[in-house]
Amino acid sequence: MEIIKPRTLSGFMELLPDKQLRFEKMVEILRRTYASYGFAPLDTPAIEDAKILLAKGGGETEKQIYRFQKGDSDLALRFDLTVPLAKYVALHYNDLAFPFRRFQISKVYRGERAQRGRFREFYQADIDIIGDGKLDILNEAEIPAIIYKVFRGFGLSRFQIRVNNRKILTGFYGMLGLADKSGDIMRTVDKLDKIGPDKVRVILLEDCGLEEAQADEILKFIAIRGTNGEVLSALEGYAGKNEVFDAGLAELKAVTANLAAFGVPEENFAVDLTIARGLDYYTGTVYETTLLDHPEIGSVCSGGRYDNLAGYYIEKQLPGVGISIGLTRLFYVLDEQGLLNPALPAAPADALVLPMTADPGPAIALAEELRGCGLRVQLYCEQRKFKQKLNYADKLGVPFAVLLGEDEIAEGKCSVKCMATGEQRRLSPQEAAGWIREEVNTDCPVILEK
Amino acid sequence: MEIIKPRTLSGFMELLPDKQLRFEKMVEILRRTYASYGFAPLDTPAIEDAKILLAKGGGETEKQIYRFQKGDSDLALRFDLTVPLAKYVALHYNDLAFPFRRFQISKVYRGERAQRGRFREFYQADIDIIGDGKLDILNEAEIPAIIYKVFRGFGLSRFQIRVNNRKILTGFYGMLGLADKSGDIMRTVDKLDKIGPDKVRVILLEDCGLEEAQADEILKFIAIRGTNGEVLSALEGYAGKNEVFDAGLAELKAVTANLAAFGVPEENFAVDLTIARGLDYYTGTVYETTLLDHPEIGSVCSGGRYDNLAGYYIEKQLPGVGISIGLTRLFYVLDEQGLLNPALPAAPADALVLPMTADPGPAIALAEELRGCGLRVQLYCEQRKFKQKLNYADKLGVPFAVLLGEDEIAEGKCSVKCMATGEQRRLSPQEAAGWIREEVNTDCPVILEK
Repeated sequence: MEIIKPRTLSGFMELLPDKQLRFEKMVEILRRTYASYGFAPLDTPAIEDAKILLAKGGGETEKQIYRFQKGDSDLALRFDLTVPLAKYVALHYNDLAFPFRRFQISKVYRGERAQRGRFREFYQADIDIIGDGKLDILNEAEIPAIIYKVFRGFGLSRFQIRVNNRKILTGFYGMLGLADKSGDIMRTVDKLDKIGPDKVRVILLEDCGLEEAQADEILKFIAIRGTNGEVLSALEGYAGKNEVFDAGLAELKAVTANLAAFGVPEENFAVDLTIARGLDYYTGTVYETTLLDHPEIGSVCSGGRYDNLAGYYIEKQLPGVGISIGLTRLFYVLDEQGLLNPALPAAPADALVLPMTADPGPAIALAEELRGCGLRVQLYCEQRKFKQKLNYADKLGVPFAVLLGEDEIAEGKCSVKCMATGEQRRLSPQEAAGWIREEVNTDCPVILEK
Repeated sequence: MEIIKPRTLSGFMELLPDKQLRFEKMVEILRRTYASYGFAPLDTPAIEDAKILLAKGGGETEKQIYRFQKGDSDLALRFDLTVPLAKYVALHYNDLAFPFRRFQISKVYRGERAQRGRFREFYQADIDIIGDGKLDILNEAEIPAIIYKVFRGFGLSRFQIRVNNRKILTGFYGMLGLADKSGDIMRTVDKLDKIGPDKVRVILLEDCGLEEAQADEILKFIAIRGTNGEVLSALEGYAGKNEVFDAGLAELKAVTANLAAFGVPEENFAVDLTIARGLDYYTGTVYETTLLDHPEIGSVCSGGRYDNLAGYYIEKQLPGVGISIGLTRLFYVLDEQGLLNPALPAAPADALVLPMTADPGPAIALAEELRGCGLRVQLYCEQRKFKQKLNYADKLGVPFAVLLGEDEIAEGKCSVKCMATGEQRRLSPQEAAGWIREEVNTDCPVILEK
C-alpha cells in the first residue's frame, strides 16, 4: 500500500495528550465559572449560510472566511461566535427569556496568512448578556467579576482588568470639537501602549489633522493615572460640559461602585482611559485584561457593551455586553513562555492497575472498585514483562501503579506504588483510593506565576 | 437597514437553552465515564488536507464530504473521528505510549441528502485503544463495561450490549466452503432484524448464489439463542473444524469470561451471532447496543476490533478496538420519543437573586456567597416591577428565586422562594444554599424509561 505522509494543516493546533489535558482543564474552569453566573451553554453550527455570516460584510472578514459551495448552497465556516449569536437570538427571539445570558466555547475559523502563534482554527470562549430593548448598567458591572473568577481559576493573581467607557471618550472629543474624528482618534490612542505618546501625537497631528492644542489636550487626558478613585475624580473635572461624557462617567462610576461586593480586589481592576477597543460596535463600557508580568501578550480577555446585536436579522433593538477569550492563542502563548504548571496532573489516569496473575478477574474488579471511588483508572491489559509494564506507566506519566499478585489477593489488599518517590504501600482498595486521591492534586493551578 | 431573514441550515441541530443543557449533561457523562477508564481527551482539527481524509477513498464518503479550496490548499471537513485518529497516531507515533487510549467527542460533517432525523453536522463520541503491533483481547473485554457505565449514567437499565466475533462468522462460512462469499453473506445476515429470516434466505439463495443446504445451515446457525452460556456451548459444537472459527470462539469466551468482574450484569449483555457490522475493517469482536423498549432506534453504540488503523499513513501494524456513539442522532430520537427526563434541571441557574433595594450591593454580595457554595446563581440586574421579575424567573425555569429587601438585609437573611411550590422561607445565605442544593436534583437521569 502506498503511504500518504500524515500531516496536520499549518495554523491548526493539535496537542499531545499531556498538553490536551491541560487545555481541557482550562475549558472546564471556563465552563464552570460561566455557568456559576447563570449563563446557559450554547452550541451553534460551525457552518452557516454565507449570506447570513457576511451580512455585515466588507474588509478582512470576507478575505479570511472559509467559504464554499455544496450543491446549490453558499456556505461558510463561522469566523467568530458573535454573528452566530446574533442569528440565534433573532431566529429564536420568541422562545428566549430576556435578558438572555449565554456562553459558548467553540472553534472559529479564519484563513489568515499562516504565521507563528496565529491560528486558522481556534477556540473562542465567549459570554454575552442580551437585553430586549434595554439592559441595565449593572450587567456591565458584573463582567469584571466573571473575568476575575476565570483568571483566578486558572491560578493567576497578577492580572489586571482594564475598563473604560466609549461615551467618555466620545464626549471628551466632542468637547474639543472633534466628534466627527473620534473614530480615527480612538484607533490612534489605542496604539499608545505599542508606540508611545510621541508617535501618537505625530499621528494625531499629521494623519488625523488635529491642532497642536487639541493633541496636547488628548495626551493630557489619556495620561490621567492613579487609583480608580483618583482617575474618577480627575474625570469629574471634565463633567458638566458634554452630555455623552456625563452619561459615560455615570456608567463608569456604576461599574466601579460595587467591585468589592462582587469580590474583585482593587489591584485587579483599573480604570484606564487609553482603552478604546478597535471595533466600532462598542458603545459603552469596554474591557481588556492583561497579565501584569507579560504585557507583551496583550489583552487576554476583551469585550464591551454594544447597542444593537442583531440589527441585520431582526427589527428589534437588542443591546448587550460580552467578553471573549481567544483560548487557543492564550494557551499557545502560555505554553511557549513556560507558564503552564508542570505539577498539574497531565496523565490520562490517576492509577494504572497491573494484573500480576494469570486470571485478570481480581485486577478487573479492583480497577472497578477504584473507579467507584471517583478515580480515573486504567487497567493494563497487555501480557508483558513487569519491567515493560512499569516503563509504560512511566511513559504515560501516571502518578500511581497498583500491583495485584497472589499475595495481595489472598490478603484482600493491593500494592500501591507512587511513581515519583518509589514509595510502595500494601493497602485495602479503599485505603489505596484514599492515598491516591490525597496525592493527586487536581486543584493545583493550570498557569504558574513566575 | 435591510433585514436578512435569519435561518439555521437544514440538517444542522441548534437547540434552545433547556434542551442544550440536557445535551451538555449527556456529554459530561460521556466525558467523565471515558476518562474514568483512563482514556485521554483528544481534539483534532475539523479541517484536514482532503488527500489525507480521502486516503481510503471511494464510494459514499467522497460524495458526502464537504471539500473546498482555500488558496492552493485542497481541504475537507472530517466525516468521522477514526480517520483523523489514524492520522494523529501515525503523525505522533514516536510521542505516544502504546496502548494509546483516547476519547474524542466532536462534530463531524456529512453532506447527506437532508431528511428528518439525519444530520449533516453531528457529534460522535468515540473511544479507541490502539496497540503497537499487538493488542490483548482483554481490551475487547473491557469495552462492554464502558458502554454499560455510559448508558447507566444516562439513567437507563433496559438496554443490551450485543457482541459477536467476525472470526466466528468467517470461520463458520469457511466450514461451509463459502469463505469467498463471507462478506456478502454477512451483509445479508446483518439485515435479519429488519427483513426477517425468510427474506434473508431468499437473498442468500438468489443474490449470493448459495445452495439450499448452505442457506439452511446459516439460518440454523444465526438462530442460535439463549443465555450467553447456552450460546457459547452451542458454538462448542462447531469447534475443531476451522482454525479461524476456533480463534474467534476463544476470543468470544475471553470477552464474556470477566463480565461479572467488570460489573456488567448478564441481562445487559448478549452474545448475538447475527451481529456482523457492515464495515469491512472489523476483524474480531463487534459490538452493537440496543434500547430494549425501542428496538426501532437501532444500535445506539457500535464498534469493534480492527487490525490496522493507520496503514495508509505509516508502515506499522496498529491494531485497535473502538466504539462510537452518534450523539446528535441519539439525542434527537430520545427527544422525539419523549424520553428526555423533564425533571432534569434545565434552567441556566439554580437560583435567581432579586435585589429589592436601590443599592444592589447586598444582593451582589449574596449572589457571590451562594456561588461560593457551588450554586449556579444569576443576579437579576434589571429595574423592573416585582411581578415582571418573577415572570422572568418563571420563563427561565429557575427552581428558586432569592429576594433581598431591607428587612432581610437588616436580619442578615434572605427570602428563598421555591418556584414550583410557592413555599417561601427566610434563611441565612448558608441555609439558603443548603435548601437549594437539596432540592436541585442534578443527579436525576437524563433519559427516562417508560
